[in-house]
Amino acid sequence: MTQPAVNRVVLAYSGGLDTSVILKWLKETYNCEVVTFTADLGQGEELEPARAKAELMGVKPEHIFIDDLREEFVKDYVFPMMRANALYEGLYLLGTSIARPLIAKRQIEIAKLVGADAVSHGATGKGNDQVRFELGYYALQPDIKVIAPWREWDLTSRTKLIEYAEAHQIPVPKDKRGESPFSTDANLLHTSSEGKVLEDPWEEVPNYVYSRTDDPETAPDTPEYITIDFERGDGVALNGEAMSPATLLTALNALGKTHGIGRLDLVENRFVGMKSRGMYETPGGTIYHAAHRGIEQITLDRGAAHLKDELAIRYAELVYNGFWFSPEREMLQAAIDHSQEKVAGTVRLKLYKGSVSVVGRKSPNTLYSEKVVTFEDDAGAYDQRDAAGFIKLNALRLRLLGRRDGR
Amino acid sequence: MTQPAVNRVVLAYSGGLDTSVILKWLKETYNCEVVTFTADLGQGEELEPARAKAELMGVKPEHIFIDDLREEFVKDYVFPMMRANALYEGLYLLGTSIARPLIAKRQIEIAKLVGADAVSHGATGKGNDQVRFELGYYALQPDIKVIAPWREWDLTSRTKLIEYAEAHQIPVPKDKRGESPFSTDANLLHTSSEGKVLEDPWEEVPNYVYSRTDDPETAPDTPEYITIDFERGDGVALNGEAMSPATLLTALNALGKTHGIGRLDLVENRFVGMKSRGMYETPGGTIYHAAHRGIEQITLDRGAAHLKDELAIRYAELVYNGFWFSPEREMLQAAIDHSQEKVAGTVRLKLYKGSVSVVGRKSPNTLYSEKVVTFEDDAGAYDQRDAAGFIKLNALRLRLLGRRDGR
Amino acid sequence: MTQPAVNRVVLAYSGGLDTSVILKWLKETYNCEVVTFTADLGQGEELEPARAKAELMGVKPEHIFIDDLREEFVKDYVFPMMRANALYEGLYLLGTSIARPLIAKRQIEIAKLVGADAVSHGATGKGNDQVRFELGYYALQPDIKVIAPWREWDLTSRTKLIEYAEAHQIPVPKDKRGESPFSTDANLLHTSSEGKVLEDPWEEVPNYVYSRTDDPETAPDTPEYITIDFERGDGVALNGEAMSPATLLTALNALGKTHGIGRLDLVENRFVGMKSRGMYETPGGTIYHAAHRGIEQITLDRGAAHLKDELAIRYAELVYNGFWFSPEREMLQAAIDHSQEKVAGTVRLKLYKGSVSVVGRKSPNTLYSEKVVTFEDDAGAYDQRDAAGFIKLNALRLRLLGRRDGR
Amino acid sequence: MTQPAVNRVVLAYSGGLDTSVILKWLKETYNCEVVTFTADLGQGEELEPARAKAELMGVKPEHIFIDDLREEFVKDYVFPMMRANALYEGLYLLGTSIARPLIAKRQIEIAKLVGADAVSHGATGKGNDQVRFELGYYALQPDIKVIAPWREWDLTSRTKLIEYAEAHQIPVPKDKRGESPFSTDANLLHTSSEGKVLEDPWEEVPNYVYSRTDDPETAPDTPEYITIDFERGDGVALNGEAMSPATLLTALNALGKTHGIGRLDLVENRFVGMKSRGMYETPGGTIYHAAHRGIEQITLDRGAAHLKDELAIRYAELVYNGFWFSPEREMLQAAIDHSQEKVAGTVRLKLYKGSVSVVGRKSPNTLYSEKVVTFEDDAGAYDQRDAAGFIKLNALRLRLLGRRDGR
Repeated sequence: MTQPAVNRVVLAYSGGLDTSVILKWLKETYNCEVVTFTADLGQGEELEPARAKAELMGVKPEHIFIDDLREEFVKDYVFPMMRANALYEGLYLLGTSIARPLIAKRQIEIAKLVGADAVSHGATGKGNDQVRFELGYYALQPDIKVIAPWREWDLTSRTKLIEYAEAHQIPVPKDKRGESPFSTDANLLHTSSEGKVLEDPWEEVPNYVYSRTDDPETAPDTPEYITIDFERGDGVALNGEAMSPATLLTALNALGKTHGIGRLDLVENRFVGMKSRGMYETPGGTIYHAAHRGIEQITLDRGAAHLKDELAIRYAELVYNGFWFSPEREMLQAAIDHSQEKVAGTVRLKLYKGSVSVVGRKSPNTLYSEKVVTFEDDAGAYDQRDAAGFIKLNALRLRLLGRRDGR
Repeated sequence: MTQPAVNRVVLAYSGGLDTSVILKWLKETYNCEVVTFTADLGQGEELEPARAKAELMGVKPEHIFIDDLREEFVKDYVFPMMRANALYEGLYLLGTSIARPLIAKRQIEIAKLVGADAVSHGATGKGNDQVRFELGYYALQPDIKVIAPWREWDLTSRTKLIEYAEAHQIPVPKDKRGESPFSTDANLLHTSSEGKVLEDPWEEVPNYVYSRTDDPETAPDTPEYITIDFERGDGVALNGEAMSPATLLTALNALGKTHGIGRLDLVENRFVGMKSRGMYETPGGTIYHAAHRGIEQITLDRGAAHLKDELAIRYAELVYNGFWFSPEREMLQAAIDHSQEKVAGTVRLKLYKGSVSVVGRKSPNTLYSEKVVTFEDDAGAYDQRDAAGFIKLNALRLRLLGRRDGR
Repeated sequence: MTQPAVNRVVLAYSGGLDTSVILKWLKETYNCEVVTFTADLGQGEELEPARAKAELMGVKPEHIFIDDLREEFVKDYVFPMMRANALYEGLYLLGTSIARPLIAKRQIEIAKLVGADAVSHGATGKGNDQVRFELGYYALQPDIKVIAPWREWDLTSRTKLIEYAEAHQIPVPKDKRGESPFSTDANLLHTSSEGKVLEDPWEEVPNYVYSRTDDPETAPDTPEYITIDFERGDGVALNGEAMSPATLLTALNALGKTHGIGRLDLVENRFVGMKSRGMYETPGGTIYHAAHRGIEQITLDRGAAHLKDELAIRYAELVYNGFWFSPEREMLQAAIDHSQEKVAGTVRLKLYKGSVSVVGRKSPNTLYSEKVVTFEDDAGAYDQRDAAGFIKLNALRLRLLGRRDGR
Repeated sequence: MTQPAVNRVVLAYSGGLDTSVILKWLKETYNCEVVTFTADLGQGEELEPARAKAELMGVKPEHIFIDDLREEFVKDYVFPMMRANALYEGLYLLGTSIARPLIAKRQIEIAKLVGADAVSHGATGKGNDQVRFELGYYALQPDIKVIAPWREWDLTSRTKLIEYAEAHQIPVPKDKRGESPFSTDANLLHTSSEGKVLEDPWEEVPNYVYSRTDDPETAPDTPEYITIDFERGDGVALNGEAMSPATLLTALNALGKTHGIGRLDLVENRFVGMKSRGMYETPGGTIYHAAHRGIEQITLDRGAAHLKDELAIRYAELVYNGFWFSPEREMLQAAIDHSQEKVAGTVRLKLYKGSVSVVGRKSPNTLYSEKVVTFEDDAGAYDQRDAAGFIKLNALRLRLLGRRDGR
């Protein structure tokens, strides 16, 4: 594979060993200028050290970008996805998938700002993240050059990587010298863990893998009740206190952590064609997801709700596969958002040792009518005799079939 | 509404107050012979008393049918539905819905056996069950007459019902004199509760409503691990011990009860157009559902799995709405069953205070390949360079769009 | 069935025999005031005679509403539906279905204007139109009373209807004395014919049934070429001449008539559960539909196009079944409309003896790239080597399957 | 790209210039033995010359495979697809797509027979056919080596190809010396044409491109009526005369040709991400497709029909993209085939100057009931009063919405 000529590349840079090696390798291999971009998506790490490291590696100060994207992340990515009730393969809340498009978008913005002709990321060649990053890049800047070092270089083992680092004066933290027993990704929505000790799907996930949630067994013995308020399909308050999107999710994360909520052990199908096993911790997102379904139960019409359930399958697949910036994801979002206008009110939830349960919901926009549904006399709100005709006409085609086919 | 002439009617008869009143009312109103049918679907009640009561009400011994349908119920109704991973409105395991078609089918069989020209049931005019029963009747015997007393008579309050019972020498159990605080339906898969104290969806379900599951808060403090074995998509063994379908579900119910698993508080959309609030307890079914998804994760191809997820939405809606005996449900079943041939292996689950978690799965048919997915050197099982082309062609249309539209 | 008390009713009134009888019958039966509403939807009849007839029947002048709704019909109903490429059961362009919601909407507006508490229509109890009218009424004015004379009265034969008319001094046109050999409905989009001579689906539709299209066999021997221009998914010009929606559809109708385009003989499934056979003539709509697909071919991305194709099935079913004013139709419309922003350009079509063919399309927004697709050297626009990786990763899961299952 | 070691390769060989060059190039490049496979899929060419050419090129007689696959093609590929009513992007009958899996399957069978370790095809790197061939190969023999010369070699222009041919003593037919003005693919179902003169989608397809259909303008001035009989969803007779699948399709092709039926000018979206413009002629298939829809109209229940219409979209996409041998295509097929058991009877069609119209259908299994649908007195087959209840309950949710939202 011949290398394209590259002048300036914007690298998604964490400051860690891998992306530091990439930074160096990009300079060496392409003889180009590297611009670093480090995003705070709520992964829970200090970002300023990344600046110091980048400077040490010779990146110009004006080429070091460190952005706090937490509010944008929750407001424009997590919440729209939560409106869809998206679950990949029935279970996964898409915590990694949903962060990638925002990183890609910001990288392209920076590339335009600094006049870079290429972007680069640290995702491997077997995973979904390379796809998500690169589909984002190409959608937003079709002629950008994309450099994916893990697919290109020959640093195919950790030993080689560390040798390269040492040969190039890149500091190698002690805990990175040995093999990490698994690999993680974190942001405000979740932490994922995969690889190594998790690779046998028959083996239970060891306790030391969990970092975002306390063990349900040691969680409080008393349930905690909370309320979340919604407006237009989005959470706006916790226990009656108004909060910004990222503040709300952060608070829910703390609650979810305490009560051991949101652990998921999953074998999933990657877009690149293989099965992988991951362990996801999505404490606040799991609570939020349950709450959103709860408020929809009383404010969403059946027709809208059932259509949404069908669209959500496709939506989740698109987000997982990296097609956030695609017309079809946007079409689905338009349909979903149209349904959320009246999704407002309060959901009451019970948190207890790993579980979250909706125990109450109320709304000024409720479509639930006690008067209609009641077992008591409904004063004519519903004429039970209508049901006879309803059933007769729904049965008509089945009767015609039955007459033809017998059974 | 003029009454059709009826000679002999098969009544779905529980032996309780309501269906006893119906039995009498049918005779009075239609001057017809009543045949009673009482099914054991695992609702946990003695059925022989129903025989005595029916005899007391003047039903001929040869016209009293009491059938143990538990194995047929689980094998031919619950398990096929579980193969689909069907959840109505994202959450409900359809415990009531799935029992109705079997009752309808057996009622029609009995009607043919005894030469009855009509069937009758005790479902009200506001609910889904009337639809499920009657669509079943009409599909299987298009020219059957259907009598739905709750839609016809003027016994519109419990007081009137009891007055009618007393006027006709029908014994009224003491606990039926007052208003029951809620209404229930039970079978081997679940118990549902609704009405009265449950009608305000903001109020938490009172503890006394639960009958099939222990309170998670009083459940054992130590998790219990179990395994379920699957063959062709169906559960066949618990902890290595082979079991028939109904035996397996019964055993899982006991486990689920102990660990407080399978409670669901739901506001759902009825087919007849209103929202209702129900509380469902599906202890064994909730464990089984999780286990089935678990074994599919390693044995089902992505294409099959994703198609199944889309079909499951429609499937669940059909079952909920009463279209079990419809060509479209059967078409979906054909597709789903086609996918299950290799769904075999063992799932390990952890039960703890209201939660069930898949913690391991293995299968002779696994499609999970450690060799392909590994973070370690994969010895050429997967060429990371292929990913570049994969992404490039997936991105092509987005790049063409991006060039046209900018962003 | 007891009649509800009615003070004032808005009747969808054509001025023909049937609705004149209804007008009288409403007065007699409900002792209420009747307000007539006659809409010009392009059905091709003079409407002023309806005014005279209504006056003659005693309707107050200020209670006679005659509205030209043609532009609103095409702009807000036909065109949005055409954006969806909606076809019911693969073939039917929904000409009758799409007119009903507009009539219902206007009736409800008039009811509010004149303070009427009821609405009425002349659709029979076997058809879809009663459903479409009434779902519209109820959605827009949930507490309106609806009177459907054909479901209520005992004028169950034409003879009785004519007797009633004569007994009440309603003029019976000579051609209405005998049985009409079929029944029709017409508007700017189409004319439908059904019933009587059309009831045997094995018998070819007789030539005298067609009224909106010339026989292809007598159509011109020379093809005619036309162009239609689109903007944002809607037709805006014919042969380069800008036209309003209704003007454009009218002009296309003339062209379609001349060339015998848009005849459809269909056995369809009614929402009320039976199959019926209809003959539809949709001359302009058939041309427009083909043109819209043509312009989408070069301006719509694949992801958007394929999603639209799936949504169109559901959309068509909703329109056919009368759920125009439903949240789910509006959600689908939001998704569809989102896709249409760049659907602009020119389509060239050939009209010839019953056929319409797209023969060319061009657009400033084209996504078709000769440079990419060309068989000639593409100067690097597309790297054929990418295809290898694309195929390899798409094949990966099939290979894993193949290794497991053999074949 | 390093070449894999190859011992023996099975080449899909037409005997034409391109595959002859490939034959030579394979030997030269891989120093391997070449086995040729030439299939008769009804493309209308003599196949024996291919044997002579292969022998001339040094292929061993026992390594030359020439198979007549026409009956298998129609019976096991075309007809199952037609049962689905599959149309790609609303219009395309998938004539090329459906032939590829059969060729791939036979190539793999031959590879097993002769102990070959590789297969090769002549499809280019920009098209869909490479994907269809290779997904087939990999699904059926996961470890096969695949050689796609057009993606590997440097014969990037026709001039270079001809030079290579001449340099290697491969005869170059005179009509292949110049550039062909377009490229074609043919089989019993269709002929496709694309490239060169067809690359501008605004330019009408020149008349000389058409080879399988007569010009509608010169087609007979008198319509021709035919009947097709169906059993279990498949055509079995033409004009009452029983025929095998391939015989029937051949006869319909002759009829379609005469009447100019089945031309389609389409801009479509390729799986590899670009738009292309093709011209398809599917004479018999177009007639057959219309007929199949016609017989389904009276024999398929609405629930089955509507589900089929949704599944058909996905089915068509899978076939187009090359996923014939995938679990999800097989699942869809299982659902579709389940629906076809009673799809039997006779369809009458009118063929006239480019159009095919269903004008009559009858069936022993008809679900159409004149008695139910009739405008005349139906003797109680349908109670119009049922419609009131049907509408009321369908409207209930819309009324609850209307009360909440106003409009």
